[in-house]
Amino acid sequence: MVNSEPGVRRRLAVDDRRDELVEVCVRLIGTRAWDSVTMADVAAEARVSKGLLYHYFSDKPDLYLHAVRAAATQLSEATRPDPNLAPPLRLRRALAAHFDWIDEHALAYRAVLQGGLSGDPDVQAIVESSRAEVVARIAHDSGIDDVTPLLRIALRGWIGSLEAACLEWLTRRDVPKDRLVDLVAAGIPAIIRAATH
Amino acid sequence: MVNSEPGVRRRLAVDDRRDELVEVCVRLIGTRAWDSVTMADVAAEARVSKGLLYHYFSDKPDLYLHAVRAAATQLSEATRPDPNLAPPLRLRRALAAHFDWIDEHALAYRAVLQGGLSGDPDVQAIVESSRAEVVARIAHDSGIDDVTPLLRIALRGWIGSLEAACLEWLTRRDVPKDRLVDLVAAGIPAIIRAATH
Repeated sequence: MVNSEPGVRRRLAVDDRRDELVEVCVRLIGTRAWDSVTMADVAAEARVSKGLLYHYFSDKPDLYLHAVRAAATQLSEATRPDPNLAPPLRLRRALAAHFDWIDEHALAYRAVLQGGLSGDPDVQAIVESSRAEVVARIAHDSGIDDVTPLLRIALRGWIGSLEAACLEWLTRRDVPKDRLVDLVAAGIPAIIRAATH
Repeated sequence: MVNSEPGVRRRLAVDDRRDELVEVCVRLIGTRAWDSVTMADVAAEARVSKGLLYHYFSDKPDLYLHAVRAAATQLSEATRPDPNLAPPLRLRRALAAHFDWIDEHALAYRAVLQGGLSGDPDVQAIVESSRAEVVARIAHDSGIDDVTPLLRIALRGWIGSLEAACLEWLTRRDVPKDRLVDLVAAGIPAIIRAATH
């Protein structure tokens, strides 16, 4: 058992502690305006000293980046396509999970896409990488090997429509989530048709 | 003629001068990274003193906001639907004008939607107002009186797809603009169908 080696055990404990702090930060981004959150707030919420927080993260922007990366990973895992389902149902399930996730993490989702730090190049790199992953998943599930420039633009456009629909829905939540799934799912065959004919 | 009244004449001259300065600023946002532009640069480019620039604009963010508002107005005017055309052609012409505008103002377009100031609430308010105008135009041209919540979300989603497709296209410009028009125009009937059935 590798975990019995002291070095590995210590390393895992360090990673766990860091993950816990990041998770506290994701929660805070999802419930409070990040501008008003201080490193002292994060430390208090995580019940650690400010010194320990600074041991793991060089400053507040560094902590924010770790949190955005963790949130992107969470969303990616929550929406991972189930290979046991047929592609159309696979897409619907992934979209349903997507809407559930943004419903639960509304503030964090808005902050990352629209907040004061959304223009930060490092934040954008994380968001871009998530978008590229979704494009790859959809191309794969649609049996597309050759993503032409027009199809690439179409799929990125579809992601833009997903994000915009999510942000608009979050302002009022006045449509049942399954109708959102119908709406957004209908876009995929439509844009693939438009981009390949 | 009202323009012969001295007060009005002076007022128009003041507005013209302000507009000229804003136009210089729009041009600079479209050609240089705004972070690296100083008020002295803007003054030099406009061949006015820094003092005069500060007479019209309280600070660099104030000037930026005026420029974003001016750019939004330019884009809105460039894409104003021609009521003499049938709605489908009207949409295609407006989209073609849209792609021409972002092609010419790529940096400004990117800066406003993705730049370091894109998260600023005042910038977002201007962008949101432009989006609402496009939703209203499309609903009108599609003969829709009653924008249901689902249709509102669908139309906002379509705008998200337009913006994302524009940003993606600008990274490589590897698709002819008329193919982009086809692609994005095809989305409107598709989302209206999806949102009304």
